[in-house]
Amino acid sequence: MGQGVAMTKWVYSFGGGRAEGRADMRRLLGGKGANLAEMASLGLPVPPGFTITTEVCAYFYAHDRSYPPGLREEVAAALAAVEELTGMRFGDPQRPLLVSVRSGAPVSMPGMMDTVLNLGLNDETVEGLARASGDRRFAYDSYRRFIQMYGDVVLGVDHYLFEDALEELKRERGCRFDTELDAIALERLVATYKEIVHKARGEPFPQDPQEQLWGAIAAVFASWMVPRAVTYRRLHDISSDMGTAVNVQAMVFGNMGDDCATGVAFTRNPSTGAREYYGEFLINAQGEDVVAGIRTPHPLTEAMARANGRPGTSMEVLMPETFAELARVFERLERHYRDMQDVEFTVQKKKLYLLQTRTGKRTAQAALRIAVEMAHEGLISREEAILRVDPASLDQLLHPTLDPRAQHEVIARGLPASPGAVSGRVVFDADSAEKRAQMGEPVILVRIETSPDDIHGMHAARGILTSRGGMTSHAAVVARGMGKPCVCGAADIAISYAERQFTAGRQVVREGDVITIDGGTGHVMLGEVPTVEPQLSAEFATLMEWADGVRRLRVRTNAETAPDARTAVRFGAEGIGLCRTEHMFFQEDRIVAMREMILADDAQGRRRALAKILPMQRQDFVELFEIMEDRPVTIRLLDPPLHEFLPFEEEEIVAVARSAGVDPKVLRRRLAELEEANPMLGLRGCRLGIVYPEIYEMQARAIFEAVLEVRERRGRAPVPEVMIPLVATARELELVRERIDAVAAAVREERGTSFDYLVGTMIELPRAALRADEIAAHAAFFSFGTNDLTQMTLGLSRDDAGKFLDAYLKAGIFERDPFQTLDRAGVGELVRMAASRGRAARPGLKLGICGEHGGDPASIAFCEEVGLDYVSCSPWRVPIARLAAAQAALRRQRACRPEAVSTS
Amino acid sequence: MGQGVAMTKWVYSFGGGRAEGRADMRRLLGGKGANLAEMASLGLPVPPGFTITTEVCAYFYAHDRSYPPGLREEVAAALAAVEELTGMRFGDPQRPLLVSVRSGAPVSMPGMMDTVLNLGLNDETVEGLARASGDRRFAYDSYRRFIQMYGDVVLGVDHYLFEDALEELKRERGCRFDTELDAIALERLVATYKEIVHKARGEPFPQDPQEQLWGAIAAVFASWMVPRAVTYRRLHDISSDMGTAVNVQAMVFGNMGDDCATGVAFTRNPSTGAREYYGEFLINAQGEDVVAGIRTPHPLTEAMARANGRPGTSMEVLMPETFAELARVFERLERHYRDMQDVEFTVQKKKLYLLQTRTGKRTAQAALRIAVEMAHEGLISREEAILRVDPASLDQLLHPTLDPRAQHEVIARGLPASPGAVSGRVVFDADSAEKRAQMGEPVILVRIETSPDDIHGMHAARGILTSRGGMTSHAAVVARGMGKPCVCGAADIAISYAERQFTAGRQVVREGDVITIDGGTGHVMLGEVPTVEPQLSAEFATLMEWADGVRRLRVRTNAETAPDARTAVRFGAEGIGLCRTEHMFFQEDRIVAMREMILADDAQGRRRALAKILPMQRQDFVELFEIMEDRPVTIRLLDPPLHEFLPFEEEEIVAVARSAGVDPKVLRRRLAELEEANPMLGLRGCRLGIVYPEIYEMQARAIFEAVLEVRERRGRAPVPEVMIPLVATARELELVRERIDAVAAAVREERGTSFDYLVGTMIELPRAALRADEIAAHAAFFSFGTNDLTQMTLGLSRDDAGKFLDAYLKAGIFERDPFQTLDRAGVGELVRMAASRGRAARPGLKLGICGEHGGDPASIAFCEEVGLDYVSCSPWRVPIARLAAAQAALRRQRACRPEAVSTS
Repeated sequence: MGQGVAMTKWVYSFGGGRAEGRADMRRLLGGKGANLAEMASLGLPVPPGFTITTEVCAYFYAHDRSYPPGLREEVAAALAAVEELTGMRFGDPQRPLLVSVRSGAPVSMPGMMDTVLNLGLNDETVEGLARASGDRRFAYDSYRRFIQMYGDVVLGVDHYLFEDALEELKRERGCRFDTELDAIALERLVATYKEIVHKARGEPFPQDPQEQLWGAIAAVFASWMVPRAVTYRRLHDISSDMGTAVNVQAMVFGNMGDDCATGVAFTRNPSTGAREYYGEFLINAQGEDVVAGIRTPHPLTEAMARANGRPGTSMEVLMPETFAELARVFERLERHYRDMQDVEFTVQKKKLYLLQTRTGKRTAQAALRIAVEMAHEGLISREEAILRVDPASLDQLLHPTLDPRAQHEVIARGLPASPGAVSGRVVFDADSAEKRAQMGEPVILVRIETSPDDIHGMHAARGILTSRGGMTSHAAVVARGMGKPCVCGAADIAISYAERQFTAGRQVVREGDVITIDGGTGHVMLGEVPTVEPQLSAEFATLMEWADGVRRLRVRTNAETAPDARTAVRFGAEGIGLCRTEHMFFQEDRIVAMREMILADDAQGRRRALAKILPMQRQDFVELFEIMEDRPVTIRLLDPPLHEFLPFEEEEIVAVARSAGVDPKVLRRRLAELEEANPMLGLRGCRLGIVYPEIYEMQARAIFEAVLEVRERRGRAPVPEVMIPLVATARELELVRERIDAVAAAVREERGTSFDYLVGTMIELPRAALRADEIAAHAAFFSFGTNDLTQMTLGLSRDDAGKFLDAYLKAGIFERDPFQTLDRAGVGELVRMAASRGRAARPGLKLGICGEHGGDPASIAFCEEVGLDYVSCSPWRVPIARLAAAQAALRRQRACRPEAVSTS
Repeated sequence: MGQGVAMTKWVYSFGGGRAEGRADMRRLLGGKGANLAEMASLGLPVPPGFTITTEVCAYFYAHDRSYPPGLREEVAAALAAVEELTGMRFGDPQRPLLVSVRSGAPVSMPGMMDTVLNLGLNDETVEGLARASGDRRFAYDSYRRFIQMYGDVVLGVDHYLFEDALEELKRERGCRFDTELDAIALERLVATYKEIVHKARGEPFPQDPQEQLWGAIAAVFASWMVPRAVTYRRLHDISSDMGTAVNVQAMVFGNMGDDCATGVAFTRNPSTGAREYYGEFLINAQGEDVVAGIRTPHPLTEAMARANGRPGTSMEVLMPETFAELARVFERLERHYRDMQDVEFTVQKKKLYLLQTRTGKRTAQAALRIAVEMAHEGLISREEAILRVDPASLDQLLHPTLDPRAQHEVIARGLPASPGAVSGRVVFDADSAEKRAQMGEPVILVRIETSPDDIHGMHAARGILTSRGGMTSHAAVVARGMGKPCVCGAADIAISYAERQFTAGRQVVREGDVITIDGGTGHVMLGEVPTVEPQLSAEFATLMEWADGVRRLRVRTNAETAPDARTAVRFGAEGIGLCRTEHMFFQEDRIVAMREMILADDAQGRRRALAKILPMQRQDFVELFEIMEDRPVTIRLLDPPLHEFLPFEEEEIVAVARSAGVDPKVLRRRLAELEEANPMLGLRGCRLGIVYPEIYEMQARAIFEAVLEVRERRGRAPVPEVMIPLVATARELELVRERIDAVAAAVREERGTSFDYLVGTMIELPRAALRADEIAAHAAFFSFGTNDLTQMTLGLSRDDAGKFLDAYLKAGIFERDPFQTLDRAGVGELVRMAASRGRAARPGLKLGICGEHGGDPASIAFCEEVGLDYVSCSPWRVPIARLAAAQAALRRQRACRPEAVSTS
């Protein structure tokens, strides 16, 4: 081991226009260290310093918190190099070199030790600093700041002790601000601080700069494992093996007079994406003062200053040369990094120093604009622009959001189930929602959980709030399908239907009260909070067009209503991948006939009732075909168990029985007969079609007659894709298909004309995936119903998983909610198997996915890898899917052509 | 094709001590034809004839019901051979050859055309027959029988027309019996019959013997596709491609005088298996007379005649020489076929003719005795004896059955869910069952369906009857586990709990009324029907011993109570494969603490309640370990969702809340919280162990403390196998296992002593099967929970499938109920995959199965093929599993060593 260790380089120096590290050594040097090295190599003005690598951190934890042999020598040599470059010496009483010590992990991570400034000061060097700077107050202010910072983060002395002493002194001196304390007062404060440390630690504050330095280094490494950091990593899926680096860098001072300053800046506007410098600065201040908020920082540019109504306060006006130099640095950084940068800088006696650069965080809107504009500018390729935008973030652009300037109080939190912010009056049932909405009142439907019976209320409501259910509960799925804001599983609200109210903590909210929900954050607020409407920018259209140019996967939508279909087409859907015909049966006029069918004693009675539904169902399809024009439309025949169409509450049972002209006893008996222990695994899907063939026959007839009607009107016939749900065996599909073919033959015969159609199936049971070869013999297409496939493969009910899903995510059992992002290792293997077995048996078999996963970027990437033909998702997620599909295609191409990765 | 057809041999002759066919040509010649050929070759007295092959049948259906070229020539040649051997000629007015024409498929199959006798008779030949036999009455009786048979089965003339004419004639003549009609009357009857045919068909009865022959041949082939035959094949899983053969054979007559006879016989007693001839005969009769029941047949042997109280009536006494010849034939046939034979014979003028032999059907008891005795006799090997007994039939031997002599009326039919016949008073709830049983009354628990709440009532009852649920409903599974008779899903009874009665048709049965149920047939009878207790014979023990000697699979049992464990050990169980700990929680004293745990607000409250259960649970394990001695015991930790332990009816909720000292509101709230849309896919199995770790900790502690307690008493410690249910991911198992290991470490520490245990898992989710390699890293064993694996893989709830399972079986979607016999193509592939992936990751991984399939012979064969280590089944099925495992091992060996197949 000795030899291996001896050969490892533990410390990387930077400064003076050179560096041993590079930006792409982030894993070894951390983000901060890698970028400092890169900037130094670029010749940008970076105070010299060095980075102790993350490998030292790994060694530290693997060897009982000790350092590798050779480290001390390497640190000493690197420090000497800094002394050389600065012309100062660490611990030198005359010209003392002071350093900052900062942590820097490969990924940005709050919770760890951040920074110790002014390290190297002691009772001797402080005098040297006073002399060298000619400012005794500055020197003692730096010293007391150092003792406080070091005492707090390295020695673990309670920071209140320091703050109390400072307040005490100010009171004594009659000062309001720290800045009013003079050098003498600060010198006394230093003495008090040292006593505080001595008392708390039982030993004096370390005077030896080497001891200070190694103390700070150890503190950085130790902070990697503090609970907050560990928790953060767990929540963000960051490996603990990664470790942190330590950056030691010569101090520069923005607080040595009015020719000094410090600031932070973005090279473009991170909020809008506009190509304008964006940032703030403070004259005669240290970095921490900008953050602390004691003094209000000024804008960087005069345009911003004018916009704020304070012309003449900008850096552009006050420090024109430095500003010009900074602007050149910004241009240089953007050209070099080919992305918008977030920069920290300090001006010491007119000289500009860069302390940090990193890729700047930005809003979805800004990301979009920056990506498109940078491509236009030739800074990045179109492909890179496509890869730069997080598809999931597009959701923000498509829905209203809370006005960021509005005050609001959150009374409860739930899951952000369907994005968008909206206000309305609270109602507790679907009928009230409909009634109030018809009177023009905006309403929020509040339910413990929703069921298909609530659909009309969900349509009427502006938003939905539930106290139970996960991201993929009925409420969440339906709301997302409708593009309607929804907060679900808000466990801290208690709903009483009887009292027509809900409580959130001590807050009681009654029916008719106004609340606001934000489905993007899961927040529930009292009263009306103003919202901002989304504007789809030109850049959005451009990026989508580029994305469409590179993606291979087709993007369809899950839609059964005309408004949904229109929305989807507007968002670029290329067809319908899932039209759930049962949703058509819940409408007022149809559910009566539907119930009549369910209550019928025999096939004849069922046929009579179905005959009433036929013309309505046909009209539905005519409308959809006309909206979708030549795009393919996949129609899934009836899927849910029949009891979903029957009432459950006694009152409603009596009413329904009366309107159906049967004894409530008959209805109750039928309800009891239809009751199921596990409806998800019961009489549904093609099982219905096999037990009650007349249902699918009616549906097939409605489809084929609609095809002919549309052909008459448009002159061109749509080619419907008839999809059979819940197939477990080839024989089921064969049987149902025979009946559909018979209906088609009958319609052809009656009309004396022909038409085309496809029959295919959902693959949503593990058995269907396993026997995909046999099933493919009878199917023109497969559509993976990954919602149900996930439920069956994991033995996990979407509706019930909410109770323990969170515990499972926390325990690391699931990396992600398997109903949101496809479980590649389990469900994914079945999808792969079914795709390859299906295609082996029937080359050219069309493959798609129509579960919730069809709108999830990570799952779309999987669909691309497996080679599906299309994904289908709710209308509002179509743009997300288009972008995600494009990214997946690009990543796949790059994986196949590695030489393409590094070029643009 | 012409050439191929020309080379095919369509007709096989037999007779005169030679035959072109053999017994092993059953596929080509049908069972009857193959055996006739075999007997002819053996030199046994078989009337000569020929067989038209099943290939002609296939050709017939493939070529629009026409015959292959060359067939007519081959038939003519074969017929000429028969003429040669008999010295008679077909259609010859002087010495007419008459033939029978019979169907004969490769498997015995009712519903098809059976027989036409006396073919070849016409107005001319009948006179020849009269002359040749010297019996004009006999000749005309034969002719009128022929016209009736041929008219009915070949020409499709309604047989009532013939019967009416016969009755009319008898009335006219004042006769009671056919036999009273003289030759003249019969001649007139023939004329009338011919008129009937002419009128019905529009053409005269065919006089040409050739036309008669080809008409009968066509009728046999056509009968292969009549609806009854098609239905029968579908129900018995017989391929329609098989086809039937046609047997044409010279007639012999048992009705030509008192030196003639006809009879049927078994070479051993088919009811008891005793080595004694068993059969009946009639003097001066044709075969159909024996069946028709007009005359009472006499026994073959004098022993039987004496037993019937009619000494001197036996064939042994009345026809001693023929009997002796027959006995020699029997011996010859048994030696040749090496199995008990079912023989038809005719004696024509003292000459014995054999018309058919086939393997005789027998009762389970007889099968067992015959197999063992034949092995003792050296007729077959022990291995063959093992293969001769249908394992499923053993169930009959282990349970009481209805006394076959008792009269009874079936008032309803359900599924034969758990074998055994039993009587008792009807009760409608578990508490009443318990109360009445404690007072010594035998009761039958009658429920719409049962739930775990009914367990104590099921224990108390002698039998269970439900109106809903399939072969694998709760009632069925639990009853089979208890070895208790159960009829379930008796849809034609309507239970009213409110009125304390059920109706079956118009029959009303009130609480307290006595009924009898037969769980072997699914019949429900009013009143007490006498039953017969089973006797386990010495042959049973012998066969089991032989089976144990050849099987590779171990047989364990599913048991958690001491009585069950004892029963299982008595039946030869080699361990417990599944101890369902939750069954232990339903007992009166425990469910209170269990509910307290569920209602607790926090982990501490749960721990308090669990502490009360701990000593009881430990005692359970101590008892099981002591009964099982050194056999392995696999203990599954808590599996069902917690709501199964809570009451559901309002009344009970109030009572339980009161006894738990909480507000009923609290209980209702908790119930609402625990309610699940699909409990099968909800918070159960290891999910409980992860959300509430204290439950599994208590159970692990109870197990380990029990191990130490038993070691103290017995001096040897059992090695428990702790089994974690419903694992979907390796991480779940890892987490739970860590906690169990921690409990073990704690117990070792406390007691200052060590002990061994294994931790393994159920494989019951498709995902677990797919990720078996990862899961095996944490598991010492896998037990396939194929009940749940079937539910998940097929998306099919055991509790709900009953509603459409029957339709699915009828439509040929499922060949068998997948909950009874493992679905090899779907679930089986997952089992294979998991077994091979698991063993690849962890060589020596122990594999077992503990679903219902563990007691199903076909599924056990699959387990043998896949190489599992053991199967586990309910105690009463242990003998079945032992035998099935032995058969599976033998079949597998034979498949590997094909040379062993033909030798004994």
